[in-house]
Amino acid sequence: MSIRVGIIGYGNLGRGVELAVNSAPDLDLKAVFTRRDPSSLKILSPDVPVVHVDEAPKWSEDLDVVILCGGSATDLPVQTPKFATMYNVVDSFDTHAKIPEHFDAVDAAAKSGGNIAIISTGWDPGMFSLNRVLAQAILPQGDTYTFWGKGVSQGHSDAIRRLDGVKDARQYTIPVEAALEAVRNGDAPELTTRQKHLRECFVVAEDGADLARIEQEIVTMPNYFADYDTTVHFISEEELKANHSGIPHGGFVIHSGKTGVNNENTHVIEYGLKLDSNPEFTASVLVAYARAAYGMHQDGMTGCKTVFDIAPRYLSPMSDEQLRKEML
Amino acid sequence: MSIRVGIIGYGNLGRGVELAVNSAPDLDLKAVFTRRDPSSLKILSPDVPVVHVDEAPKWSEDLDVVILCGGSATDLPVQTPKFATMYNVVDSFDTHAKIPEHFDAVDAAAKSGGNIAIISTGWDPGMFSLNRVLAQAILPQGDTYTFWGKGVSQGHSDAIRRLDGVKDARQYTIPVEAALEAVRNGDAPELTTRQKHLRECFVVAEDGADLARIEQEIVTMPNYFADYDTTVHFISEEELKANHSGIPHGGFVIHSGKTGVNNENTHVIEYGLKLDSNPEFTASVLVAYARAAYGMHQDGMTGCKTVFDIAPRYLSPMSDEQLRKEML
Repeated sequence: MSIRVGIIGYGNLGRGVELAVNSAPDLDLKAVFTRRDPSSLKILSPDVPVVHVDEAPKWSEDLDVVILCGGSATDLPVQTPKFATMYNVVDSFDTHAKIPEHFDAVDAAAKSGGNIAIISTGWDPGMFSLNRVLAQAILPQGDTYTFWGKGVSQGHSDAIRRLDGVKDARQYTIPVEAALEAVRNGDAPELTTRQKHLRECFVVAEDGADLARIEQEIVTMPNYFADYDTTVHFISEEELKANHSGIPHGGFVIHSGKTGVNNENTHVIEYGLKLDSNPEFTASVLVAYARAAYGMHQDGMTGCKTVFDIAPRYLSPMSDEQLRKEML
Repeated sequence: MSIRVGIIGYGNLGRGVELAVNSAPDLDLKAVFTRRDPSSLKILSPDVPVVHVDEAPKWSEDLDVVILCGGSATDLPVQTPKFATMYNVVDSFDTHAKIPEHFDAVDAAAKSGGNIAIISTGWDPGMFSLNRVLAQAILPQGDTYTFWGKGVSQGHSDAIRRLDGVKDARQYTIPVEAALEAVRNGDAPELTTRQKHLRECFVVAEDGADLARIEQEIVTMPNYFADYDTTVHFISEEELKANHSGIPHGGFVIHSGKTGVNNENTHVIEYGLKLDSNPEFTASVLVAYARAAYGMHQDGMTGCKTVFDIAPRYLSPMSDEQLRKEML
């Protein structure tokens, strides 16, 4: 019997979840819930109903787990606690500073409903967090570095788009190669913000806009660009569409640690992601954790969980016997 | 209060465990057990007693977890079930084909004793296994590759040492760079044994030995070398000591998978290790899992577990609150 899945929210992430559920061997998509007029929404799966989100509470007999695909700023702080009272849920809440607060709210809701709620899955927070914890647990005398990119930052692209005279923009975050090399060598360097990442911007300006002024406003923008080496390229709208319409991302968690009588041995643990589509990969992680939410609930657990609380066996569709025989 | 640890077996791995326990913030080494005459064994920790292994059953009041540092061929199949009836235990059993059998024996013993036994930890089996399972759970439409090296293979070095006219030898397993590149590009190539790894041998021959005959015997040796491109270097005993006395190892688990409406997006997940000392790193993994064995036992669990059964939180010395606040 398949695990019956609902999706709430159908943007890039929700669409990625739809694809990931459909390619999982043991999950079955039962409904997509939206705030829009359901008749206006065309999804990829022809036989799956699109339902208004206000109807979602009525589906509790028909769904084993609901995957929340809203944004972290305003959607998930409300939706995850709300739906955790009714369903096993999974979200990708990624406002790092507010995770403890979100956890507490969701934990109370999930416990009151007797459900499992897994928050902050995806890759960072998510798989990167997991790798930071594992590496530090294994090599406590060491240093952990996280690099992001090469990838599109939505927030930075939006910041450029808000400037006067800018029609469209795409910003790439890029790890500095020399910093990566030093970390991989186990040198444990001290790195400033500027030494870790570059920012590269592709900007479509409006006709007659003052390009020098736009460039200056970008590279000096506090928080977003001022602390980085930033390059700005002005390109045509066609070029932006042709070469920069993807949403790639990725990055590295690198931990170097020492062992030995005199710390004479260095070990480097590296976890890297190279993703053609950030939302589709994030969605794939959400779906694996949806399987885990269902399995843990079947085993009698309730409450809010993070990637740290979940035994890997729950993420896999394989049986324990198969995992030990084929994967260990 | 610290977790009280015993070590059984004091070779390279046991010594590595001693170092790792001593650098963990929350573990305390209480005894080292040996089959040798205890008075003949000098360990690194001046205040820790060295005790004959026959006395180990008498220490059950004084130890929270015992780390088994014997070999997989003959020691662990006997020792792990035996001590799992008395203690929470951790081992690094690495005979992949016999893991299900070992699991069953250890599970029965651990349950009868009300203990936790974690088997087959280390890096392969261990962290590599974990990464294979996670990657496949996230991207089920994909291919997983494991590469080993560059590193010293003890078994292959021993096979060379057994040849007539060979005084000493060191064999390195090396991933083929072109294969790594193809896999990292997401090409999902079909790779033969020869296309994945090279073997490089450093051999000290006896005076007057027939070098051509030795080289021929190495490169044609079935199972060990015949299926690989193997290079043989004859060097002096001094050179072997100076340049090849370390026990480095490492490797990569690389998974490439597809998502998208027409599988148009490729994602690559890579986990890599670069280790100056194979036994010291393996020991560090064992110690993290010793922490987990204690924590899971405290939480009322019993029986045999593998890396797949263990929530990451149990590996870390941090509290759940701290993990969520600082590491997620």
